[in-house]
Amino acid sequence: MGLAGIRAMVFDVFGTVVDWRTSIAREAQAFFARHQRQDLDPFAFADAWRALYSPAMEAVRNGSRPFVPLDILHRENLETILPTFGFETSALPSQELDALTLAWHRLDPWPDSVAGLRRLKSRLIIAPLSNGNVRLMIDMAKRADLPWDAILGAEVAQAYKPQPRAYLRTAEILMLDPEEICMVAAHNDDLRAAQSCGMRTAFVARPMEHGPGQTTDLVADGQWDIDVPDFGALADSMGL
Amino acid sequence: MGLAGIRAMVFDVFGTVVDWRTSIAREAQAFFARHQRQDLDPFAFADAWRALYSPAMEAVRNGSRPFVPLDILHRENLETILPTFGFETSALPSQELDALTLAWHRLDPWPDSVAGLRRLKSRLIIAPLSNGNVRLMIDMAKRADLPWDAILGAEVAQAYKPQPRAYLRTAEILMLDPEEICMVAAHNDDLRAAQSCGMRTAFVARPMEHGPGQTTDLVADGQWDIDVPDFGALADSMGL
Repeated sequence: MGLAGIRAMVFDVFGTVVDWRTSIAREAQAFFARHQRQDLDPFAFADAWRALYSPAMEAVRNGSRPFVPLDILHRENLETILPTFGFETSALPSQELDALTLAWHRLDPWPDSVAGLRRLKSRLIIAPLSNGNVRLMIDMAKRADLPWDAILGAEVAQAYKPQPRAYLRTAEILMLDPEEICMVAAHNDDLRAAQSCGMRTAFVARPMEHGPGQTTDLVADGQWDIDVPDFGALADSMGL
Repeated sequence: MGLAGIRAMVFDVFGTVVDWRTSIAREAQAFFARHQRQDLDPFAFADAWRALYSPAMEAVRNGSRPFVPLDILHRENLETILPTFGFETSALPSQELDALTLAWHRLDPWPDSVAGLRRLKSRLIIAPLSNGNVRLMIDMAKRADLPWDAILGAEVAQAYKPQPRAYLRTAEILMLDPEEICMVAAHNDDLRAAQSCGMRTAFVARPMEHGPGQTTDLVADGQWDIDVPDFGALADSMGL
């Protein structure tokens, strides 16, 4: 198996380390309450916001737009979805939109994430390899006590996953060969991209990421090095 | 004074957070012993190695060479100084030179550094703004238990201090105005450059950085916002 050669683990964050859906719904609910719109479904709002995530990055990935941090895309996407929930964006104070955008900095970890990361950190370098920007990852880590050794990812690499540069530049900065790095994700596509860059791969199942009706990424569908149900089992698999 | 507006502290590391001279001398002493050259002065070796630090970066700063991480410069500088201490570089195994270069990843903190950083971290974002590369800073932090929130600095900014880009790009990544960031350093020149970029400044005296005969940076020689003898007093000055 050769897991002994792994020197660093890099992590997808949204969905893998943190439960973005429940956390965004919590913030949306407070926003709706402030506007006397408790009739709206905060989970539908979270799903709608997240649905624009990948399309928004695509413009950067295909070069039609220079790299911009994810906070900018989250803010633009927010302005796109608000009218579909009956809000007139221009009638809302800019500060309120900024504050709601920062909901993505306040995501709660899955119950096993922090303890598992602490065990892995004892012998490995651990860092996010997320499309979230550095400040977003810093704020999230301080609030949730995520013990990262460094904040890496799209903004540092100036490329969004699944572009090869996001993985390869991260390996370069870590001064490791890709095969010394294990990409950890709850998303098979992310692992596929990491594997084609030469990284090891660990699938962590998060069957509630999209709520009770989730149909995607319920199981590992590639030849991944590790396939586990949570971060505790991930640390177990590394003998930590 | 307005220290209340400070949201992040960024740190010079070599000399300010860690005692590079004693640490490099310790590693040089072991290297000399392996080669039966206990007659050599390990502190002179540390000083000679460090003396090439700024000139080596100058080629990157003036554009005559593309950005390369500090580990590369440290390795080249090692090859330059070894002959002056009587070693034939080509006669030494490449792995031994690599291992000695990594001495810069194993620097010990000053006695007050870790406790002070922990106090500052409770309310502020703390990160290195060092010319050392990311992997060097990760290895150092894991070994010395430096509780950084993120690893920033020259490699992430792709510019060596005191170039303005090193400071301004760091502020941009932190999504803060420069005046919301305090640069902490034992070196007046570093603070001068940070201040001209709009950052707040804190001088921490490290009168033994260069050993008992130190003549430079013994006192603050600019209008810095904070002037303290150690990181404990730095945390005090922030009311932490």
